[in-house]
Amino acid sequence: MTAVGIDAMEIWTGKLKLDLAETFAPAQGDDPGKYTKGLGLHASSFPDVYEDIVTMAANAAHRLMERKGLVPDDVGRIDVATESSFDNSKPVSTYVAGCLEQVYDGDFHHANKGERKFACISGTQSLDDAYNWIRAGRNRGRSAIVIATDTALYARDDPGEATQGAGAVAMLVSEDPDLVELSAEQGFGSADETDFLKPNQQFPSVDGKRSVNVYLARMREALDDFASVAGDIHPDDYPLIPFHTPFPGMVRKAAALGYRHIIRGTDVEDAVAAEIGHQPMREDFETDDAFRDAIREYTDSLTETERYKDWYADTIDPTLEISREVGNWYTGSVHIARAAGLKHARENGRDLEGKQLLVASYGSGAQAEVHAETVVPGWEEEIAQLNIDEQNRERYDLSFEEYEQIHDVHNHDMEADVEEFTAPESEFVFDGWGRMGERKYRYVE
Amino acid sequence: MTAVGIDAMEIWTGKLKLDLAETFAPAQGDDPGKYTKGLGLHASSFPDVYEDIVTMAANAAHRLMERKGLVPDDVGRIDVATESSFDNSKPVSTYVAGCLEQVYDGDFHHANKGERKFACISGTQSLDDAYNWIRAGRNRGRSAIVIATDTALYARDDPGEATQGAGAVAMLVSEDPDLVELSAEQGFGSADETDFLKPNQQFPSVDGKRSVNVYLARMREALDDFASVAGDIHPDDYPLIPFHTPFPGMVRKAAALGYRHIIRGTDVEDAVAAEIGHQPMREDFETDDAFRDAIREYTDSLTETERYKDWYADTIDPTLEISREVGNWYTGSVHIARAAGLKHARENGRDLEGKQLLVASYGSGAQAEVHAETVVPGWEEEIAQLNIDEQNRERYDLSFEEYEQIHDVHNHDMEADVEEFTAPESEFVFDGWGRMGERKYRYVE
Repeated sequence: MTAVGIDAMEIWTGKLKLDLAETFAPAQGDDPGKYTKGLGLHASSFPDVYEDIVTMAANAAHRLMERKGLVPDDVGRIDVATESSFDNSKPVSTYVAGCLEQVYDGDFHHANKGERKFACISGTQSLDDAYNWIRAGRNRGRSAIVIATDTALYARDDPGEATQGAGAVAMLVSEDPDLVELSAEQGFGSADETDFLKPNQQFPSVDGKRSVNVYLARMREALDDFASVAGDIHPDDYPLIPFHTPFPGMVRKAAALGYRHIIRGTDVEDAVAAEIGHQPMREDFETDDAFRDAIREYTDSLTETERYKDWYADTIDPTLEISREVGNWYTGSVHIARAAGLKHARENGRDLEGKQLLVASYGSGAQAEVHAETVVPGWEEEIAQLNIDEQNRERYDLSFEEYEQIHDVHNHDMEADVEEFTAPESEFVFDGWGRMGERKYRYVE
Repeated sequence: MTAVGIDAMEIWTGKLKLDLAETFAPAQGDDPGKYTKGLGLHASSFPDVYEDIVTMAANAAHRLMERKGLVPDDVGRIDVATESSFDNSKPVSTYVAGCLEQVYDGDFHHANKGERKFACISGTQSLDDAYNWIRAGRNRGRSAIVIATDTALYARDDPGEATQGAGAVAMLVSEDPDLVELSAEQGFGSADETDFLKPNQQFPSVDGKRSVNVYLARMREALDDFASVAGDIHPDDYPLIPFHTPFPGMVRKAAALGYRHIIRGTDVEDAVAAEIGHQPMREDFETDDAFRDAIREYTDSLTETERYKDWYADTIDPTLEISREVGNWYTGSVHIARAAGLKHARENGRDLEGKQLLVASYGSGAQAEVHAETVVPGWEEEIAQLNIDEQNRERYDLSFEEYEQIHDVHNHDMEADVEEFTAPESEFVFDGWGRMGERKYRYVE
């Protein structure tokens, strides 16, 4: 069976930065540690006045096509995943194709364009669609461009305000990929949940505590479902485990739960038993509550073991390095987690060729998906092309007043006349509205 | 290669009816023929007060599962296509699964749920995703439920008001299907167009003339693309050609263009040449305009030939029989066209087993997709189960004042306190809002 997976990826961050410790915390009268330690976040990215989900998506896709030397005829599918759509009918992918057609000879008229929505998980769902399309033999030798793009804004003073972010990830899905091969096996954990939603509104209504619990519950189901088809999951089998990262603190919880779950009955549980005992068993407790308390206590002790700390430092922490600097990108977050992990591995000389990643996606509402990816020859050259560190360094550092202005600019219910903070160069920019209320775009040389 | 396709389908119409000739035309001061002849529409379906895109979808899916004797574990995927979504993050499929879990033992926790948006074409895109998922070998023996559900409302007094409609189509996609097998071959015609859009609004902004032209242009591209992989298309090869049907008059135009396009250079062109001459060739005209005029004249003459009239009566007209009575269902429209064609064939004793349909989907924004479907043994029994005629007959016939009320009920920007016109029975109903603004549902025995 021919390998199918991610051949290349590009990341495009919004060009403005809100420093949570230096700028946001003082304005809120908060201790910076609330954000940097509690949430694990240092900064959020925001789109400049001339940026939006289309420009970020098109710019990421353009870089991808340029770097891989692609022309429109090489692309049979453009799928965009977003929960920041500004149109209830027309998909973002058509705008993205329209942008790209401004700078390429040829067109994407025979490419299938689509849009998926399911909170933060639809980026991974679109990746799966592209994989399935190639596996089904319908791609005619062409590749798919899958783009996750979001402007993750909360209402001002919402508890989620510190976890905002904006950016796009473009992935090229192909036969014989140069980055990772996707597993056919997938695990799902999915239920009708009311944890985070946007009923006819731009900014989310969130039940924060419930959202954390739902993330953990669905993820556990997805791990079990994956194990049922792919076999038991042993932590030693996966040198990197990128999770959906609404904020690094969430992944800290998910990693602890996941680790406890997958070491049950393994040599790892035995190895740490001398220190913290074996995992509590339901039959040893009279009530569910007592069992849950014991599990919580065991998990807390587990995370204090050297074994866990080493695992976390190697397997999880590297995947958070980009998120910490850019905030939540919704559909793109798990994909920047993968990129961060691979980037860290390359920079630290870890040889991952042939090794497997366990990729754990999640979307509120709610659904988790787990699949494996095999790192393939060429991955280091691919990852070396990412310039996200440079992009992050070059972001304009907003004052709090400027942050308030840019939040208004991107609020669909407001009209805010704000000057751009940065100068666009060699990129697509928003160019005003057309006569039917459509957004227009042009390429700035 | 195992056949993959549609194993069964169910249609659920909104339970209210607006008669265009008897009720709408007089209130507008219009000649009824403007609607019945011009648009080709007799009536529109509307959801009652307790209905919406979720209840219609869940009710169609419920009937499908009951009839096929399915339990939740048989379903590995629930995909919903809609452009009437009421949430920018949480997909309709999660609500549908939540409804179904109220009436079944077991759950859909290991099923992948999703939502696609691309005007009217996303129903077909979701069908393709399900097909690809099975072909990719990821379904673990399970089927997919694909649902197209929409409440197609226009602003009051918009030119599109007479083409409204509401309903859902649920399709079971499986290996070894009992209705139609899908072709691997697909043709696409897709471009970034501003013909119909909903920028941060519920009701569409439409450029009607442009929309018709874009439909035709993209459809022609899709036909060419399909022919490039599946071989030349001859009208005799396809006893039924279901088109996306915003209103039957649009299909009348598309059929004429399509027929002219596919008979070029065939025995059919030769056969009618004595009567109307051969098709104009670009090189025989000095300007594009003159060529276009000649093409238009030829097409008009072509539609007056007996050969064309017979073809249209056999191949196209039967596909419009349901649409005429229910209006535009957006994502569901091409699927009720397929159902109408097959239903007509069964009722008239046409033997379609082993024959091919050419299915021509379209969504504004804009994209057309063409694929073939082979009618398989069992199709007549499947189609015999449809009760859409009965549903249509039982609809409550709205007065114009009642129509105005129900339009307000389904307008997201209004609050209208209107009594239900029908009594729900053995179905899911909308049951008010939850604390986070979520819509709630219950099953009425």
